Amino acid sequence: MPETLRGACLVGQSGGPTAVINASVYGVIRTALSSEYITDIYGANHGIVGVLKDELFDLKQEDPAELKLLMTTPSAELGSCRYKIADFERGEQDLARILEVFKKHNIRYFFYIGGNDSMDTCDKVDRYLQKVGYECRVIGIPKTIDNDLCLTDHCPGYGSAAKFISTEIAEIYKDARVYDTSMITVIEIMGRHAGWLTGAASLASVCGCGPDLIYMPEVAFDMSRFIEQVISVYSIEHKCIVAVSEGIHYANGMFVSEAVTSSTDSFGHSQLGGLAATLANELKKIVNTKVRGIEFSLLQRCGAHIASRTDSQEAYMAGETAVKLALSGESGKMIGFDCSRDNEYVCRAVPVPLTDVANAEKKVPLEWISSDGCGVTSDFIRYALPLICGENEFPTEYGMPRYARLKKVLVK
Amino acid sequence: MPETLRGACLVGQSGGPTAVINASVYGVIRTALSSEYITDIYGANHGIVGVLKDELFDLKQEDPAELKLLMTTPSAELGSCRYKIADFERGEQDLARILEVFKKHNIRYFFYIGGNDSMDTCDKVDRYLQKVGYECRVIGIPKTIDNDLCLTDHCPGYGSAAKFISTEIAEIYKDARVYDTSMITVIEIMGRHAGWLTGAASLASVCGCGPDLIYMPEVAFDMSRFIEQVISVYSIEHKCIVAVSEGIHYANGMFVSEAVTSSTDSFGHSQLGGLAATLANELKKIVNTKVRGIEFSLLQRCGAHIASRTDSQEAYMAGETAVKLALSGESGKMIGFDCSRDNEYVCRAVPVPLTDVANAEKKVPLEWISSDGCGVTSDFIRYALPLICGENEFPTEYGMPRYARLKKVLVK
Repeated sequence: MPETLRGACLVGQSGGPTAVINASVYGVIRTALSSEYITDIYGANHGIVGVLKDELFDLKQEDPAELKLLMTTPSAELGSCRYKIADFERGEQDLARILEVFKKHNIRYFFYIGGNDSMDTCDKVDRYLQKVGYECRVIGIPKTIDNDLCLTDHCPGYGSAAKFISTEIAEIYKDARVYDTSMITVIEIMGRHAGWLTGAASLASVCGCGPDLIYMPEVAFDMSRFIEQVISVYSIEHKCIVAVSEGIHYANGMFVSEAVTSSTDSFGHSQLGGLAATLANELKKIVNTKVRGIEFSLLQRCGAHIASRTDSQEAYMAGETAVKLALSGESGKMIGFDCSRDNEYVCRAVPVPLTDVANAEKKVPLEWISSDGCGVTSDFIRYALPLICGENEFPTEYGMPRYARLKKVLVK
Repeated sequence: MPETLRGACLVGQSGGPTAVINASVYGVIRTALSSEYITDIYGANHGIVGVLKDELFDLKQEDPAELKLLMTTPSAELGSCRYKIADFERGEQDLARILEVFKKHNIRYFFYIGGNDSMDTCDKVDRYLQKVGYECRVIGIPKTIDNDLCLTDHCPGYGSAAKFISTEIAEIYKDARVYDTSMITVIEIMGRHAGWLTGAASLASVCGCGPDLIYMPEVAFDMSRFIEQVISVYSIEHKCIVAVSEGIHYANGMFVSEAVTSSTDSFGHSQLGGLAATLANELKKIVNTKVRGIEFSLLQRCGAHIASRTDSQEAYMAGETAVKLALSGESGKMIGFDCSRDNEYVCRAVPVPLTDVANAEKKVPLEWISSDGCGVTSDFIRYALPLICGENEFPTEYGMPRYARLKKVLVK
């Protein structure tokens, strides 16, 4: 067995925020703190951009009680970025600069938390450092509400966004039934290419408050069929709740949200707006009832107050396992989840090759979408339901969540 | 002391849903169950409309464990309505019908939960029954997220909606800071005539995540001043979070949401949409940055998963006190809250005259709005903060809230 590397560890966050990405940071920090080989623990200010700028926080200077609050603090507390390391020459310059900063601070462990693009960054850094012979363990930690990374059962961040979505759908369902009058509600949910989040609306059915129709980007959208399906539910129930993914598109690939609708107001002007508003307008032309469009917008990304405890704990486990694997000599890997749902739900963190994950995308299997294209099968529910289980206790001050307050002391 | 009336009690819900209106129903039921004078407990199907139709549920047939779940079940479980009893002759017909149904079921206690219009209904029923000499105690129980009822410190339902709003504002604040790039966010909050809900956005400041600017209907809106104030914050912070009430209007009384904007798309068409989208479009014309409009929409009405424990308990207390007062011989009253905030927050339920409450409206005092018209003073925060304190524990099944499931057996 090779001698364990001695040096600093660096953790960075990348891509869109989630309710639990900070739990992975805490998993890294807490595990690193207990290792005799890790001399310092640094956090990159806004991900790889902070590395390029040599802006690193000295996380050992933080109060342990504040660090613990990362478990229930939403968004990316170290700051995030969307920076991609280019291929070829321009990318080499970035990589050389990263090496320079790693050498300066003796960084021997690098943990990068993010989605597809971030795993590509991770992979490039790992291969470059190997090529130039700089010993450093590089491990990617998955994070994305979109749940679209390959080689893992699911991604940290998805369960909490799914729990927000299903809980809100249930509350809207109850709200829509308060009056003895008819109503149609169209709810727009994130997910440009994959329907994992929109499908999670179905989980509200376990408390009898599920949506009537679900439209995901995996199936080409047809406006006439959509209107027909809504009318079909509405004519019997006098209510209809529809969940649509922002990424639904026509068979020719054009996003429904981008298509100029034929809807015109009384002045003959086109009515533009979000997807939910567009679909609501189309329905209003046909059905004489109240039609409301609702967009969950940013609320679904960072709903720490209704985060899934399972998700938070798995996000922590991903960070913890990343450090343990790196200390054992692994590099060039992402933490994947290997799950079983046979009797009870069990989730294990396992290493998967970064190269195979980077830039690939996992969609909802077509066999998990109902044959009429407007719902999910029980297999989808069986898959997603364990991921939303459990609630976090979060500390409050005067009724508001008490988030982590980090000092963020820059390393000289 | 007069002999206590013996007979059935009837509870009804009216107006828009809230996170805690069912807690008031539970307060009525549980207190009524322990009275030897109350022979039966009925619930009106969709409020006064259900009374007119003689559609009453026999609530004694419900499982006590299910009834208890009303404490954390959102919306109006008995069903609500927006029916107003007309003045003069048409109203007399309704009132005669109500008397007929009351006599048929020997209803001697009537509890009606709702806002201004519902208190008007309550008042009319009370005065009519007195006029015709039918002995019945009529008590109104306040409910409205708008918090606009007079003669009460605040209304059940407001605290939970305020807690949803301030918690979401804090999460959006965290989300908006994830990248090192500039961004403006305009958030539309309910409240057609009063700014109580929009003002509650300010409560996020207790965790350092408050909005930069708040616009309420109590102050006439000026688009140029709005843009100036946003730019002023943005030019320093490179971020700006703005909370606007749906009810903001120009000095001439025209709602900003109804005014056709001068905004046109590349085809020369007017861009219509919600208020947040309209204001975002105005800002985009001036500022070269990402501007996002978010509408909390229905989500803020029924957020039982983030309800205020204080609010739930007070809603229960309002129902409980209503029954106790009725049993003691009171009628023609609404339950008001008399609160003190001197050392600690104390809230007492007290009777106030229905006639004085009906159809009046309470706005945010102008001295609680900052002099620049785009914020609230510390008096507002001191007022509202106690109302959002505490979180409910709510039972879950497979990660979803377990709502009450009532049998709703109709009385023959």
